[in-house]
Amino acid sequence: MPADTILIIGGGPAGLEAARLIGDLGRKVILVEKREQLGGTPVAESYAALTHGFRSAEEAMNEVIGAVRANPTVDVRLGSEVVACEGEAGNFRVRLAKSGNGAGEDLHAGAIVVATGFQHFDPGRETQVYGYYEYDDVITLADAEKMLKEQKFVIPSKGTAPERVCFIQCVGSRDRQIGNEYCSKVCCGISSKQAIEVRQQVPGAKVFIFYIDMRMYGYWENEIYWPAQEQYRVQYVKGIITEIIRKGGRLLVRGEDTTMGRPMEVPMDVVVLAVGMEPSSGTKEVARVLGLKQNKYHFIDVPHDSLDPTATSRPGIFVAGAAAGPKDLDDTMAMAGAAAMKATTLVARLARQAA
Amino acid sequence: MPADTILIIGGGPAGLEAARLIGDLGRKVILVEKREQLGGTPVAESYAALTHGFRSAEEAMNEVIGAVRANPTVDVRLGSEVVACEGEAGNFRVRLAKSGNGAGEDLHAGAIVVATGFQHFDPGRETQVYGYYEYDDVITLADAEKMLKEQKFVIPSKGTAPERVCFIQCVGSRDRQIGNEYCSKVCCGISSKQAIEVRQQVPGAKVFIFYIDMRMYGYWENEIYWPAQEQYRVQYVKGIITEIIRKGGRLLVRGEDTTMGRPMEVPMDVVVLAVGMEPSSGTKEVARVLGLKQNKYHFIDVPHDSLDPTATSRPGIFVAGAAAGPKDLDDTMAMAGAAAMKATTLVARLARQAA
Repeated sequence: MPADTILIIGGGPAGLEAARLIGDLGRKVILVEKREQLGGTPVAESYAALTHGFRSAEEAMNEVIGAVRANPTVDVRLGSEVVACEGEAGNFRVRLAKSGNGAGEDLHAGAIVVATGFQHFDPGRETQVYGYYEYDDVITLADAEKMLKEQKFVIPSKGTAPERVCFIQCVGSRDRQIGNEYCSKVCCGISSKQAIEVRQQVPGAKVFIFYIDMRMYGYWENEIYWPAQEQYRVQYVKGIITEIIRKGGRLLVRGEDTTMGRPMEVPMDVVVLAVGMEPSSGTKEVARVLGLKQNKYHFIDVPHDSLDPTATSRPGIFVAGAAAGPKDLDDTMAMAGAAAMKATTLVARLARQAA
Repeated sequence: MPADTILIIGGGPAGLEAARLIGDLGRKVILVEKREQLGGTPVAESYAALTHGFRSAEEAMNEVIGAVRANPTVDVRLGSEVVACEGEAGNFRVRLAKSGNGAGEDLHAGAIVVATGFQHFDPGRETQVYGYYEYDDVITLADAEKMLKEQKFVIPSKGTAPERVCFIQCVGSRDRQIGNEYCSKVCCGISSKQAIEVRQQVPGAKVFIFYIDMRMYGYWENEIYWPAQEQYRVQYVKGIITEIIRKGGRLLVRGEDTTMGRPMEVPMDVVVLAVGMEPSSGTKEVARVLGLKQNKYHFIDVPHDSLDPTATSRPGIFVAGAAAGPKDLDDTMAMAGAAAMKATTLVARLARQAA
């Protein structure tokens, strides 16, 4: 008999949503999460407001977590990892191990949804020009989220409110030198959202965004980009930043204003690096264990001519969210629903065929 | 008893995919399409290659249509429209009418998926500066798709191969004057894809793209934008086009090159207007009949703080694809899967509760 349980790997937004939906259908789900808590990156990295109506990320995640926890057909395994997998669609035999512990358990699953997400690019790694490891006041989008969540957006080295804040776009994205040619899709939107939050929390601060192209696609244009400019007076400068140095207790940001066609040198109290997405270590590890093809950037590969954004190289295994590449929250939730549907459909069809 | 049939309105990519998936689960679907054929805009407007590996749109659509047609639980009603709807989740009573005919039929549905799509902005309507109605050689992305599909990309007024072709971005998008402040999301990618196709079909042609921001998010950056520049030598110019006039048998495109900070005046054989998305007449009509809230742009409104991109203002009615606003094909297919899952889950839960 084919197995009727669906295994979901990853307890972030995509994995939670897929688990919630399959559970709602009364079908059996095992949700495996490496961390000791659910909620994925938004919870682990203390995200502030979401781009969806500036709703609290914690509140939104708690709602999905609550729905999963309340569902008796969803079996949640925290602190656990998939360490081996054999078999095929309808009959995957998966070995689970407690993280940092040899003790294992064997599972039987009809289909698998991979929702192991992304990690932020480490801007100290190769792009040394921005001085992330040298200067306390050069931070990342993720660092900024934490301060914004605590309603305490300050100059890290001083603990006081900043007068001048800037965001530098495309750090770790659109960059052949570091090997990440892709665009990380969400950083323009998240930077603009944070710029609005900074202006709300520190009304006296001047906020600048240095960008190549502002990729405010769809409704982000009218819901975030226009208000950022018109209502919150965020200043967008098309330009390239070549260097950050420390001068007179402040940061000096040097580069070129592309529109004006002239060099620029501007003092800042806080510089936020809009770091891009890379596959999480969990995504790379799970792809290896499940034998899934990865693309050039080590995200899970979705077949190139596929009209199914949740397909992987292995039948019966689906991908949802940023494990497949840069995704926004709408992408992630839609993919989670689609992957849940496809996993369910597959398991149901195999059961009908076996009956 | 709650109804177990799911009604899908719209037979384009989103509606077909939702119908296919729900049908695969062995559940009853009625798929209603106003046109006399399935396939939606890609078929009706003769799209050429998709951005997914430059696969033939016709071939890809035929695959999904075939899957729907082969499924005995999917009841396809062509040339039909929903003209009335009352009731609530689990118990919608819907009146169907043959297009252009009073004859009606009453249906009972447990849930509804709206997949009524978009239409291209009409560039002759208000943006008269581009002369769409005056000059044969000013065409739209949709017009260009037709020529590219037939492998016959010519100067419309002459029937000969063009030497110089340009694309003008953001026609009908990001424009407060015409009331469409949103970004249409896909036009940068589609223009770049078409630019590549023009260079493939007319290797001697020079191709230019005039843009505000190149919104090549995610993998479009490395899969389309970089090859367009490096391999196909498409020339991207950040600039604003203010006027098109006819001069010496050619078109003269006038504007400002923003990067160089100087006026430009360039002769072209064909000008392609990258027209944006607006809600289709079907989307507006169905929203009215079903009593769904529409946003400022008359797309179907998705509640603002929702983490569900397929939610509408009315429980039991879900939206998939560009009926909810500008969407790319990945968005559309993922939303279709998610809406299918949510409709199915709802119908199954109501049946359990009633049992």
